[in-house]
Amino acid sequence: MRIAMAQLNVHIGDFEGNKAKIIDACHKAISLKADLVCFSELVTCGYPPQDFLEFADFVQMSENVVDSLLELSHEIAIVVGSPIINPKTEGKDLLNCAIFLEGGKRKYTQAKTLLPTYDIFDEYRYFEPATEWNVVEFKGKKIALTVCEDIWNVGNENPLYPICPMDEMMDQRPDLMLNISASPFHYAHAQERIDVLKSNVERYKVPIFYCNEVGAQTEIIFDGGSIVMSPNGQVYEEMPYFEECIRVYDLQDVIDGKIERVQEKNKIALIHDAIVLGIKDYFAKLGLKKAILGLSGGIDSALTAVLAVRALGSENVRVLLMPSQYSSGHSVDDARALAEALGIRYDIVPIRPIFDMYEKTLGPLFDDLPPNVTEENIQARIRGMLLMAVSNKHGNILLNTTNKSELAVGYGTMYGDLCGGLAVLGDVYKTEVYELSHYVNKDKEIIPINSIQKPPSAELRPGQKDSDSLPEYNVLDPILYQYVEMRKSPQDIIEMGYDEATVRRALRLVNINEFKRYQSPPVIRVSSKSFGMGRRLPIVAKYLN
Amino acid sequence: MRIAMAQLNVHIGDFEGNKAKIIDACHKAISLKADLVCFSELVTCGYPPQDFLEFADFVQMSENVVDSLLELSHEIAIVVGSPIINPKTEGKDLLNCAIFLEGGKRKYTQAKTLLPTYDIFDEYRYFEPATEWNVVEFKGKKIALTVCEDIWNVGNENPLYPICPMDEMMDQRPDLMLNISASPFHYAHAQERIDVLKSNVERYKVPIFYCNEVGAQTEIIFDGGSIVMSPNGQVYEEMPYFEECIRVYDLQDVIDGKIERVQEKNKIALIHDAIVLGIKDYFAKLGLKKAILGLSGGIDSALTAVLAVRALGSENVRVLLMPSQYSSGHSVDDARALAEALGIRYDIVPIRPIFDMYEKTLGPLFDDLPPNVTEENIQARIRGMLLMAVSNKHGNILLNTTNKSELAVGYGTMYGDLCGGLAVLGDVYKTEVYELSHYVNKDKEIIPINSIQKPPSAELRPGQKDSDSLPEYNVLDPILYQYVEMRKSPQDIIEMGYDEATVRRALRLVNINEFKRYQSPPVIRVSSKSFGMGRRLPIVAKYLN
Repeated sequence: MRIAMAQLNVHIGDFEGNKAKIIDACHKAISLKADLVCFSELVTCGYPPQDFLEFADFVQMSENVVDSLLELSHEIAIVVGSPIINPKTEGKDLLNCAIFLEGGKRKYTQAKTLLPTYDIFDEYRYFEPATEWNVVEFKGKKIALTVCEDIWNVGNENPLYPICPMDEMMDQRPDLMLNISASPFHYAHAQERIDVLKSNVERYKVPIFYCNEVGAQTEIIFDGGSIVMSPNGQVYEEMPYFEECIRVYDLQDVIDGKIERVQEKNKIALIHDAIVLGIKDYFAKLGLKKAILGLSGGIDSALTAVLAVRALGSENVRVLLMPSQYSSGHSVDDARALAEALGIRYDIVPIRPIFDMYEKTLGPLFDDLPPNVTEENIQARIRGMLLMAVSNKHGNILLNTTNKSELAVGYGTMYGDLCGGLAVLGDVYKTEVYELSHYVNKDKEIIPINSIQKPPSAELRPGQKDSDSLPEYNVLDPILYQYVEMRKSPQDIIEMGYDEATVRRALRLVNINEFKRYQSPPVIRVSSKSFGMGRRLPIVAKYLN
Repeated sequence: MRIAMAQLNVHIGDFEGNKAKIIDACHKAISLKADLVCFSELVTCGYPPQDFLEFADFVQMSENVVDSLLELSHEIAIVVGSPIINPKTEGKDLLNCAIFLEGGKRKYTQAKTLLPTYDIFDEYRYFEPATEWNVVEFKGKKIALTVCEDIWNVGNENPLYPICPMDEMMDQRPDLMLNISASPFHYAHAQERIDVLKSNVERYKVPIFYCNEVGAQTEIIFDGGSIVMSPNGQVYEEMPYFEECIRVYDLQDVIDGKIERVQEKNKIALIHDAIVLGIKDYFAKLGLKKAILGLSGGIDSALTAVLAVRALGSENVRVLLMPSQYSSGHSVDDARALAEALGIRYDIVPIRPIFDMYEKTLGPLFDDLPPNVTEENIQARIRGMLLMAVSNKHGNILLNTTNKSELAVGYGTMYGDLCGGLAVLGDVYKTEVYELSHYVNKDKEIIPINSIQKPPSAELRPGQKDSDSLPEYNVLDPILYQYVEMRKSPQDIIEMGYDEATVRRALRLVNINEFKRYQSPPVIRVSSKSFGMGRRLPIVAKYLN
């Protein structure tokens, strides 16, 4: 038996587009003489469809895509993921299914059993878990179909779930496992996936074909990296990351094993590629091309510009350099050097005249109070307004350059530097911004070394440095990591050896700035805990503040 | 037996504050000679605690509050809601519990069975459902304890759930039901609650004591309205809405029935009171007092100002009148008249000089393109910036005045009129804004009649009217309601008799403006489907657009 694995980049709710891609992949699989072609979880409607699943019309359109494949299933068996209406009255309205099409019919439908409802996942909001499990007979082989999370409770060792779907099917002696997934990227996840597949194969002694979604859906990046694993636990092949791909495998070759092809897993390279795909798909799926951002001469905006150019091409990225009276001369020089190196259009727009007009207008309302953060915010907001004005006039989407450290502690101005359609570095700590910048510069200096080496500064008052207001980032970032990613208590973190006052201050800053993050742009997720849909906290709360 | 019902306004994560309130209520109940005092769901930590529940430290602090009540339970039995750690390895880490304290001990803990995971609720994200149900014996009576949703599947008639906790307890012959809830307000919910309690009482033939949370938690308003219902299905008493309250009831009196005291349920009055509480608690729980908003002369900002004054007092509300060259003379007059009627500080800040400076600065970047929405957005953003500057300088929180119709179709400027800490009218359709304004004016004209009667306009270009860009609100709003609240398909709505082109255009506008709502302020929820945590949709999607 020859099995085709199709990791496609679908678009949520683009039923016509998704159908065309699926049919195209079926034809390719037929031309490669495959007997069966597999697609990813909810491939008909795209994952995650979120509350569109509450619209009966949306579910019906997903069903229509499945129906449109029936004719082709005379030529090749097809496994697609799609939501279907729960035939039982009791429980949630939908099932998250792997549907096996053959000979013009829906031969078998296996619903998902383990419904992730944590972090970015809300599956129990929509779906009822499976209560029946059957293998599918095809060409003399028995196939155990599962959907994504279903294989993440091997032998019931994951304490989250009381059921292990594969265990339920072992009586029926499957010859192979086929799992359709929509497993989002974070920088350590590809290895976790291989490990969990290995545990499955070691327990069940049959090969597994694991087909994953690829492509970005706003904040969530799917990295593909579909896996075919031999019964000996070797990765027969791990398909490429971050790109669409269709490949065929002879079952017997996979069973025989022998070859082992895995993708390289370098944290910073993966983050780089994930972000580039995140930007590219955000624009492509919105039907847009052109980006704009503010270039300050600092490292965050420099790195954002490089990533934008890699995603969209230099002809589609333009930047504004918006010095204030507090900007150092070299800031403009560094920004200009980068723009020239990247070959992107740049314009220099000093903000002083507008700032002066605001001061004049606001003077009577400020009651002679001394300058404070208000004046700093005004500068940041003038820049945001200028960028949005060019964006509106010319149809460029504003890219946000805030990093995760700043977003965590609220070091940014709402409606100022927190503007933008997409926060490119919002899940990248400042210390990782440096690592990414060195990675970008690994072959030649693209980001001016001066932008990398100078002390971080918002340049909103004379001689300002980030370290005036915040701990040094190499101290701050590990504390933030323990709190945000690892959900440690202040006491836990202090016991790791961090200074108590610094820990308490950092955690308090995280918690009191939830209101800023609430209105921040969507963040491209690259870690296991990103600000956005996977982290839900009250704005008005008193914990640790 | 005498039972005290304490509907308290707790603050998420304010363990010291919540503990003090609970203890105070216990003392009050003791002084009223109650044998038992009931509090609402998760009263120790506040509801909804969201992902704070993933912090072991947060759960421990909730446990500490429960422990701190043990001593008092020698004097009075206490039922509190609190998260506890799931003693079983399998399943989610926590249980959402009603804990019965008596004689210095935790006498019984009943976990919640039915975990709402829809709309604003994410309970299955954190909690494992109960699998055991026992009545508690107290003073010769058997009490069936349930938590909120547990009583919403009477006799298994709610298709969402396969279990009915009360049915499971009926073998043990309970004498009364006691339900602790955190059931959020929407304008039709109080009647639904009474109806569901009535179904319970009719089926189980025992009285029910239903204790609900009161107070606002950012977007979510809890209205209290705790209910004591006699076995004959009569509401013995419905406690007041939107305020803290402790009352005692003799069980025999409730069983005997006879009296029936319910609260008035007028949709517009309820919305009014809910919003006033929403504003009040947002400020109080953040430890702030002063609000600012822009007054345009239009109805939305006028109504927002009135509600703000009712919540915070006229001394704590100030407004800016920011006419542009397109503002009509009467706009400033109407705004001024309102400010004077309300006795609030107002300042007039014409935006023309700043606008001219932006035009001058941006001219070279606009490539001689004709004026378009860009120039309109600049005006809206100047206003946003002025308001934020005064907010930053003087510590006023900016209130957002956008209504639900505008938010739905994206009729607003990001970082402009969409600025603010809290969207006061974000769940109120424009047609309801009119109803609310008439309600405010019912005894005397507070909102100038001119603000109510003139055609809605953003006044961002000469002679502009909302109806240039949008269908009339009395056509638009019912379409939006069918789509947003009722999740109807375009076909469904067209079949109700609405014009096809208008329907398709309206729904497309809703879907393509998800990116604006993503960055909008939190909305005070007053309907069954508000923009915010209860409505989760992808930004980059192609459904109906």
